[in-house]
Amino acid sequence: MVKNALQHARAREKEYLKELFHLLSIPSISALPEYKGDILRAAEWLAAHMKEIGLENVQLLEEGGNPVVYGDWLHAKGKPTVLIYGHYDVQPPDPLDKWLSAPFEPEIRNDNIYARGASDNKGQFFAHLKSLDSYFEAQGKLPVNVKVIIEGEEEIASAHLEKIINKNKEALQADFALVSDTGSPSLNQPAIIYGLRGLLYTEITVQTAKTDLHSGMYGGAVENPAHVLARIISQLHDQNRRVTIPGFYDNVKAVDREERRLFAQTRGEKEILETTGARRLISEKGYTPVEAKKIRPTLDVNGIWGGFTGEGEKTVIPARAHAKISMRLVPNQDPEEIAKALEKYLQELAPDTASVSFRLLSFARPVLTPRDNPFMKVLQEAVAEAFKVTPFFNRTGGSIPAVEVLSRVLGLDSLVFGFALDNDNVHAPNEKFSLEMFRRGIDTSILLLGKLGSKS
Amino acid sequence: MVKNALQHARAREKEYLKELFHLLSIPSISALPEYKGDILRAAEWLAAHMKEIGLENVQLLEEGGNPVVYGDWLHAKGKPTVLIYGHYDVQPPDPLDKWLSAPFEPEIRNDNIYARGASDNKGQFFAHLKSLDSYFEAQGKLPVNVKVIIEGEEEIASAHLEKIINKNKEALQADFALVSDTGSPSLNQPAIIYGLRGLLYTEITVQTAKTDLHSGMYGGAVENPAHVLARIISQLHDQNRRVTIPGFYDNVKAVDREERRLFAQTRGEKEILETTGARRLISEKGYTPVEAKKIRPTLDVNGIWGGFTGEGEKTVIPARAHAKISMRLVPNQDPEEIAKALEKYLQELAPDTASVSFRLLSFARPVLTPRDNPFMKVLQEAVAEAFKVTPFFNRTGGSIPAVEVLSRVLGLDSLVFGFALDNDNVHAPNEKFSLEMFRRGIDTSILLLGKLGSKS
Repeated sequence: MVKNALQHARAREKEYLKELFHLLSIPSISALPEYKGDILRAAEWLAAHMKEIGLENVQLLEEGGNPVVYGDWLHAKGKPTVLIYGHYDVQPPDPLDKWLSAPFEPEIRNDNIYARGASDNKGQFFAHLKSLDSYFEAQGKLPVNVKVIIEGEEEIASAHLEKIINKNKEALQADFALVSDTGSPSLNQPAIIYGLRGLLYTEITVQTAKTDLHSGMYGGAVENPAHVLARIISQLHDQNRRVTIPGFYDNVKAVDREERRLFAQTRGEKEILETTGARRLISEKGYTPVEAKKIRPTLDVNGIWGGFTGEGEKTVIPARAHAKISMRLVPNQDPEEIAKALEKYLQELAPDTASVSFRLLSFARPVLTPRDNPFMKVLQEAVAEAFKVTPFFNRTGGSIPAVEVLSRVLGLDSLVFGFALDNDNVHAPNEKFSLEMFRRGIDTSILLLGKLGSKS
Repeated sequence: MVKNALQHARAREKEYLKELFHLLSIPSISALPEYKGDILRAAEWLAAHMKEIGLENVQLLEEGGNPVVYGDWLHAKGKPTVLIYGHYDVQPPDPLDKWLSAPFEPEIRNDNIYARGASDNKGQFFAHLKSLDSYFEAQGKLPVNVKVIIEGEEEIASAHLEKIINKNKEALQADFALVSDTGSPSLNQPAIIYGLRGLLYTEITVQTAKTDLHSGMYGGAVENPAHVLARIISQLHDQNRRVTIPGFYDNVKAVDREERRLFAQTRGEKEILETTGARRLISEKGYTPVEAKKIRPTLDVNGIWGGFTGEGEKTVIPARAHAKISMRLVPNQDPEEIAKALEKYLQELAPDTASVSFRLLSFARPVLTPRDNPFMKVLQEAVAEAFKVTPFFNRTGGSIPAVEVLSRVLGLDSLVFGFALDNDNVHAPNEKFSLEMFRRGIDTSILLLGKLGSKS
């Protein structure tokens, strides 16, 4: 059964890519309201496609936000049930002028698919759908029970996912979740992820006057909010690159020696330097850069703006300056507690010449999946067979709110193994997805479902 | 002659306002290239209007940038020659959502004209044109010789003005320049300006990676340019609010006791607080806020940007962060020397994780007009008669590059008396121009030209 499905997948590759390209050509950007129509177009196309390949009960689950596309196949009596998760929404493509080809006109160059969403996450969940497609076409059935949820708000912190999962608690029960929304350093170093950082996303605004002011008439006499914002941001880290929010590190769970040894094996500083073009890496004192981005909490300004930002000159003192500031959290930091601590801290840092306001945009808790989860061993075997090399355990600096929601609301552990590569330019211009990873992704999925079906 | 002109101006006020409204409705924004057509439309309308009121030799003077509109009337033999200066270009109107009426649809509310450019500078130079208009219509001639130059690049640091003045050195000779591009604290406190700060406008860019990066994948391991920019900006002032650029204050000319006494009289801190909505004022240690903005050099961030600045969230580490930073300079600071010092200082402040690049956008030297200039007394008399109160001498924090160019290239002193009020929202939303100031501006111009003509 597995062999037939694998052969079938290889034979149909051209058609599979054509379908993926269609999905990639829809600009389903969740962060920008003007793309709402494209979000719905992507959801509807997916629903139709899932029906077409053989999934049942296909429907759009909605709770006020972008729909989750649901489908299932539950005829493998006595076999495990797998909940496959993915997301069809993508990041905005800006800055557009840095793309070598249009972000929503997918194109293959050097055995990579270039398009916004190619790697994050359309190409990855599509590999699972094509695994199911191959089984249905080759055998007319699946080796296990499968439920699929593809959401449309991952890039905006899965705003309505919890509500939807809560409403469909019974229907979504499974033995574990299968989540492919992560990456590996290279084709020969497949990484199974057992830990994900949490996320706390905020926006702060500094205001010093009721309106923009002429810098000649008021410069030197009226406070400049960009100066205040700069002083605040410069105080959010200390000399050791530690975050200065009071209590920030209080609940950070210690990482044991075995875990630190795992990360020593996966150093990859050279790859980070090559991928990013950074002059040299940084890290919190006492940790390597790779540890800093995987197992330590961090704080970053994701956006900053205020005053005149066009071409040329405007001699203005802005009335307001803004920053989007997000934190990546690790077990057992509590996002809500830290949000409160930050809000209080900002008031301490604010001078009496400015008002500083704070908005909590979203948060997701950090998650760890036990490495001894019984299905983890099956995944390891499937990956080893598809990649012809033993996978390694890793933690990642990114966040997948769904993994946290599935754990908290449904009590599900997630097996997290993605098909991206670390240099896929995720969230950046020229996002790409390796054709070879698309193949191995399909194979891994076929092998995993097959092994699960033959075990029990 | 003067009386006739004054009466005529009052009788024709409605028509004059209609003409001004037409000019205000043209969005002649010099900072944004897409408004080039409107710049030319404004210049051509002005040229036609100047011909219509009776000026001669009307022409557009061009040297690659926006045209200067020129016109003259040189038939007052043996009388002084006045060079009237103004600018028809305006600031961009953003943020648009803060305007109560559309910026290019002028409207009168509470005896004020609301429009971008109403006060800065269309309303002001138009008062002089209407003074000439009144003389021509009432008497068929002017009491003195007049040359008019209205430029289109004041808001972009008068980029081509020097070239144009240099090319027309002979034709532009005059006894002094008359410049109305400044303001007074109130209708009862007319201010003659004898000192203007200079301007040095720069843009800096911090880059830490070759492309935007996913903050989950790289946060904590790769430097964030917004953090670096914030640290640099926070180091440009010290605790005493002094600018830290090495050598910045070296050539600052001491202000004598008599001058400081002048500014003590014009305190106006309450007005600044009311106009700006600031919580409290600031100042360099050892100086009052009013002194800080008039006679001390200052540094302001005019714009800051980088990363994701839209609605919602994007978990990105930007590749670059930018700031527009300008300095207001006082006699005898040298803008070119300070630009070099800043460029060098930025390299010292830059960490080895970032590259910091620097662009000099423009500069203008600071200027002082001697208070004992022989024409200054005539201006004082004219203002006293138009306002029924003795004007006071003041220095302003703003810069008028033209004043500096006229001084350096033509050797002309400028009489600087403007018709704006300090709360006119210049360079800000809801810019306005007082109807009463428009009237008094015309009267002052008529009285000044009349007195000059009858003296010699």
